[in-house]
Amino acid sequence: MRVGIDLGGTNIAIGLVNDEGQIVLKKSIPTRGERPWQEVVRDMANLVLELTEEAGLSVSDLELIGIGSPGTPAKDTGMILFSNNLNWHNVPLRDAMEKLIPVPVKIDNDANVAALAETLFGAAKGAKDAILVTLGTGVGGGIILDGKVYDGINNAGAEVGHMVIVSSGIPCNCGRLGCWEVYASATALIRMGNAAAAAHPESILAQKRKRKGGLNGLQIFKAADENDPVAIDVIDKYIFYVSEGVINLVNIFQPEVVMLGGGISAQGERLLRPIRQHLMRYVYCKEVNGPRLTCASLGNDAGIIGAAFL
Amino acid sequence: MRVGIDLGGTNIAIGLVNDEGQIVLKKSIPTRGERPWQEVVRDMANLVLELTEEAGLSVSDLELIGIGSPGTPAKDTGMILFSNNLNWHNVPLRDAMEKLIPVPVKIDNDANVAALAETLFGAAKGAKDAILVTLGTGVGGGIILDGKVYDGINNAGAEVGHMVIVSSGIPCNCGRLGCWEVYASATALIRMGNAAAAAHPESILAQKRKRKGGLNGLQIFKAADENDPVAIDVIDKYIFYVSEGVINLVNIFQPEVVMLGGGISAQGERLLRPIRQHLMRYVYCKEVNGPRLTCASLGNDAGIIGAAFL
Repeated sequence: MRVGIDLGGTNIAIGLVNDEGQIVLKKSIPTRGERPWQEVVRDMANLVLELTEEAGLSVSDLELIGIGSPGTPAKDTGMILFSNNLNWHNVPLRDAMEKLIPVPVKIDNDANVAALAETLFGAAKGAKDAILVTLGTGVGGGIILDGKVYDGINNAGAEVGHMVIVSSGIPCNCGRLGCWEVYASATALIRMGNAAAAAHPESILAQKRKRKGGLNGLQIFKAADENDPVAIDVIDKYIFYVSEGVINLVNIFQPEVVMLGGGISAQGERLLRPIRQHLMRYVYCKEVNGPRLTCASLGNDAGIIGAAFL
Repeated sequence: MRVGIDLGGTNIAIGLVNDEGQIVLKKSIPTRGERPWQEVVRDMANLVLELTEEAGLSVSDLELIGIGSPGTPAKDTGMILFSNNLNWHNVPLRDAMEKLIPVPVKIDNDANVAALAETLFGAAKGAKDAILVTLGTGVGGGIILDGKVYDGINNAGAEVGHMVIVSSGIPCNCGRLGCWEVYASATALIRMGNAAAAAHPESILAQKRKRKGGLNGLQIFKAADENDPVAIDVIDKYIFYVSEGVINLVNIFQPEVVMLGGGISAQGERLLRPIRQHLMRYVYCKEVNGPRLTCASLGNDAGIIGAAFL
């Protein structure tokens, strides 16, 4: 049995995972990241022990404890170099955990872990090379090559959201102008939706915005499905920008599978169909079969499952 | 001893390469790609036999014949699916060559082969993960991961020049708008130089253009080094665009080494220094050490050497 820990900014979810990638038992507690990191690690260890006992197992039955953490890990030393979400700097996460529980601990970044889970047991099951792009608050990425997480020499790669697609475009938090994230995240969709609603107060989109006191991604998709030309225009533009980055990644990687995850991916085929059309039309090499484009399938469990298989 | 063949649109260069990656003997003949492909393959085979004899070797001393070809190879079947330069479609290059010479033949795309050579014996020697970007007529790419060529499921990946960096920008031959190639190739630099010279007939750049009846990349760099503000502006803009793509690749791959090759890379540190500055300032993860940025070092021999080590 393996343990997967999805260490998030708000909650810590821990699961016992069997060899088939199924979560047999899981629990979650609030992270309360404002505490000293040692307390967070102690809470995680206690919850692992609790789960193990509840499952009628002992610690010696655990093969591995994997932790998916926000931020940049140094995998060789098992440290979290820094994490904005947790306000952690140089936290020796692996060693601290191994001191509390005598089981090998591995750590990785949360996006990488989710990509690994989807490749082993989810939407890209059976693939050797796959890329997960999460369209959420930002645009995250996880790259699996030859069945393993690829993130470069310093574990800081796979930042696909910080690929500039509009040179000198809208400022990104990272300091660059025109990153994919600023055009393809849920945040970007909402920004575009709000701007369009403000410019077209007669539109269905503007009415929804007024009624709800704001817009979310789902409402913009819904207004488009109600044939609001203003919303249709926003969605077309948004999907075009998502496609720009997806096509870039395909031209570079030509992986077996490209998966879209994050909140926006709930749109499923509504999102995938037009991206596939852009891809077929604009991919560099049209003479060979390219990757399969699909949505991630494991949802929130991906963090636990992927961590367990680090 | 190994044989490396650099099959180009104009010339075919063939070399005997020893285990240290040194070319011990080489010859070249015109490709004359307008002929039936069978004749081109026969010429290559004859030249291999000629070289082997001249070196006092026999065919049984040859470990491998590697061929770097323009276009898209299907490595599993040893076919060149198509090549614009050679006007080849579905040419069974490997099998045809193996029929003429009883030595194992491997084929790959010319950019991949050059990247492999630079990683094994050139500017990225000793690195496991390295990317070569060639700034020439177009922008080409070769990606080496874990010491091997990475080009995706269909051998059509690594097309880094066809990563859009200026969404809805200048049309690219590939059908997209705003590919990196259209902003960072030598062709792009010359286009920008010509436009600037036409707009500023008083500039040193315009005078050079008039005197030589046109501009090449070197002249634009020279005019900038002569403190021509018009040329300086062109070079700054060009280097900014090169940097945009390099930073994208670093954010995605964080390889050990990024190499610049192609004609423009003759500028060496003149080119690298400002790109490094952009990179340090704009890379997503500033807290860890990133890749080494350098120029390719093997020049035209990379094609032969890399092919020999496929």
